[in-house]
Amino acid sequence: MSDTARLETFSDGIFAIAATLLILDVNLSGNGSVAHQLVQAWPSYAAYGISFATLGIVWVNHHTVFTQIARIDRTFLFINVLFLMVVAFTPFPTRVLADNLRDQSKAAAFFYGLTYTSMAICYGALWFYAAHGRRLLAPTADERLVSGISRSFRPGTLIYAVATLSSLVSAILAVVLYALIALFYVVESSVFGRNEPASEAAGE
Amino acid sequence: MSDTARLETFSDGIFAIAATLLILDVNLSGNGSVAHQLVQAWPSYAAYGISFATLGIVWVNHHTVFTQIARIDRTFLFINVLFLMVVAFTPFPTRVLADNLRDQSKAAAFFYGLTYTSMAICYGALWFYAAHGRRLLAPTADERLVSGISRSFRPGTLIYAVATLSSLVSAILAVVLYALIALFYVVESSVFGRNEPASEAAGE
Amino acid sequence: MSDTARLETFSDGIFAIAATLLILDVNLSGNGSVAHQLVQAWPSYAAYGISFATLGIVWVNHHTVFTQIARIDRTFLFINVLFLMVVAFTPFPTRVLADNLRDQSKAAAFFYGLTYTSMAICYGALWFYAAHGRRLLAPTADERLVSGISRSFRPGTLIYAVATLSSLVSAILAVVLYALIALFYVVESSVFGRNEPASEAAGE
Amino acid sequence: MSDTARLETFSDGIFAIAATLLILDVNLSGNGSVAHQLVQAWPSYAAYGISFATLGIVWVNHHTVFTQIARIDRTFLFINVLFLMVVAFTPFPTRVLADNLRDQSKAAAFFYGLTYTSMAICYGALWFYAAHGRRLLAPTADERLVSGISRSFRPGTLIYAVATLSSLVSAILAVVLYALIALFYVVESSVFGRNEPASEAAGE
Repeated sequence: MSDTARLETFSDGIFAIAATLLILDVNLSGNGSVAHQLVQAWPSYAAYGISFATLGIVWVNHHTVFTQIARIDRTFLFINVLFLMVVAFTPFPTRVLADNLRDQSKAAAFFYGLTYTSMAICYGALWFYAAHGRRLLAPTADERLVSGISRSFRPGTLIYAVATLSSLVSAILAVVLYALIALFYVVESSVFGRNEPASEAAGE
Repeated sequence: MSDTARLETFSDGIFAIAATLLILDVNLSGNGSVAHQLVQAWPSYAAYGISFATLGIVWVNHHTVFTQIARIDRTFLFINVLFLMVVAFTPFPTRVLADNLRDQSKAAAFFYGLTYTSMAICYGALWFYAAHGRRLLAPTADERLVSGISRSFRPGTLIYAVATLSSLVSAILAVVLYALIALFYVVESSVFGRNEPASEAAGE
Repeated sequence: MSDTARLETFSDGIFAIAATLLILDVNLSGNGSVAHQLVQAWPSYAAYGISFATLGIVWVNHHTVFTQIARIDRTFLFINVLFLMVVAFTPFPTRVLADNLRDQSKAAAFFYGLTYTSMAICYGALWFYAAHGRRLLAPTADERLVSGISRSFRPGTLIYAVATLSSLVSAILAVVLYALIALFYVVESSVFGRNEPASEAAGE
Repeated sequence: MSDTARLETFSDGIFAIAATLLILDVNLSGNGSVAHQLVQAWPSYAAYGISFATLGIVWVNHHTVFTQIARIDRTFLFINVLFLMVVAFTPFPTRVLADNLRDQSKAAAFFYGLTYTSMAICYGALWFYAAHGRRLLAPTADERLVSGISRSFRPGTLIYAVATLSSLVSAILAVVLYALIALFYVVESSVFGRNEPASEAAGE
């Protein structure tokens, strides 16, 4: 297996495990009948859904990014470890958010956003380190696609930072923004320069 | 690694982790001697067994399905993320069912079935999106096998929906139906057009 | 990826996750200083060590077994799912054993052994189904190695069954036997017909 | 898949799962507002960060080590299982450290270091077993790189042992040393004979 393939496999593992561990923090909430407790657990569902979707989207994009990368070096590996440290951290802010969303805790919403902003920063660093001067890119990497990825990375950190700061106004507002960001990335399939994965791009 | 191989690896990870996390919710139950508590934990064993078997069967079929798929696009990826979100969610309804089966909680049995019905819907959407007009299928995909898979997918959602609704009559009835559905898929090895996995089909 | 490779990957995932989840059930025990609680937690360490080593050995052997298998069919897949269901179940009896070893609970030791006996039965079924009439073996599978594996599988279930029954006499005796069985398989590197993995066998 | 590739995949799984499970032991700490509890949880963050970074670094080096190894035998497999047993154990001392760092528990800091010293011993044994007389190395393995790896392994155990013993003087000192060791390995990218991963070494 090549270096990049192994790194992808390891990264996939962290993504898959972190996303699946999220469910351990979904619990029945409050008192009363089981049906009532199931309904009352909605903040857990919301936090689970937003975090799982966000991790899923980042994973999908990670996939597209890695199709462009031909080599890795130690610096890239270590940025990736840092990035994965944040990815693996997400179940904690998700749990904190789920436990305190009913009380509209601004601290919980801020902490959640702070984590995802950090992830966006690490993720951007990963890409720009690889793409700078085409340092780690395949010689065959499509310039238009590379520019498209770079362009789509630029606003990422800013968007998350703004959503995070909005938590200081209202926890609910921030959570709605986190959900909208995830939704935006899902529907905006042209986010990476209107490219479909490489296997489909042959006909362009 | 090809796109489909990577997606399979990621999906396999989610299936394996979700199935293995199920055990964290199996606990001794009630008071008395260890032997007594081990026996009293039977609802946990039942819930564990049904959920693990169901995930295992879906995984096995997922494997057959993916042998027919040659390409992926973003829409397919995102349906897959949604599908995996439901797969990774299953430990929660399993835990709720295990904790409330002794009380024959209809809400717990309904919620459990609702999750698996949602999984069936996502899983069907995944297949029919790929198979529609042979959108993502390999040119060499065997028409008889493709029809067989489509035919076997059609009743899946309905069967789970009926079992789920039966929980409104009796929680025990619904759980027995969930177990029978899993058992049916295990013994009905011809469910996918009587095909054995591709490696065996050569001699047909 | 071939069918057998994918099945191995999935099985590896279950083994790796089950083995790693074992640590979640290791906890400080009793009261007093941290140092005292760390020492008092010895039953947790013992249970962790025996279970991890056993899973590790089964995984290693699983690897040797799979080098001989060229094809899979649905029956084989489903025996494998059953086998993995037991593998993924092991953290529960390990936890029960760790929590009740200090009290020398015969029930806990029996339940632990029962699980591993079940695993041995499933594992043997898996092999003998594949090897019967060389049903799923590679045409090139070495007859001597196949016989060696079959020979080594035969006593497995019996050994575990005897150790399990010994728990009715003494929990400590049974646990010592479980540890010895694991140790035996570790040192008895010739268990599989004195073969080294295929990559080393070329020179034979 | 070759034997070494499979072993790497299994090892990667254990690393990824152990690293991701660390987050389950990060919890809000103390009383008061959510913001206060988030700040008070700093020992959890510190323990998580050090453990995740250390596992990440060991994983990265493991990767470089395995590029040199061409074959595996049973002894190597079993040393690897022992090594992985320690890797999978790390969430427990991390949890103990996080829970008792505020009290500057020397026992917790010692136990943490003891685990990592054991990991260094197993890891060294793994390498020196493979490299002794080039037992398991590829014929093409670069002698300079092999010597570089051997040289970098020698101080590893000693460094961890010294840091561990320092915990008897001060828990905080030991934790600072654990963090510095991780940091040292991150920045000292030339630790393995100034080599970049194989994919980059072609031009040397």
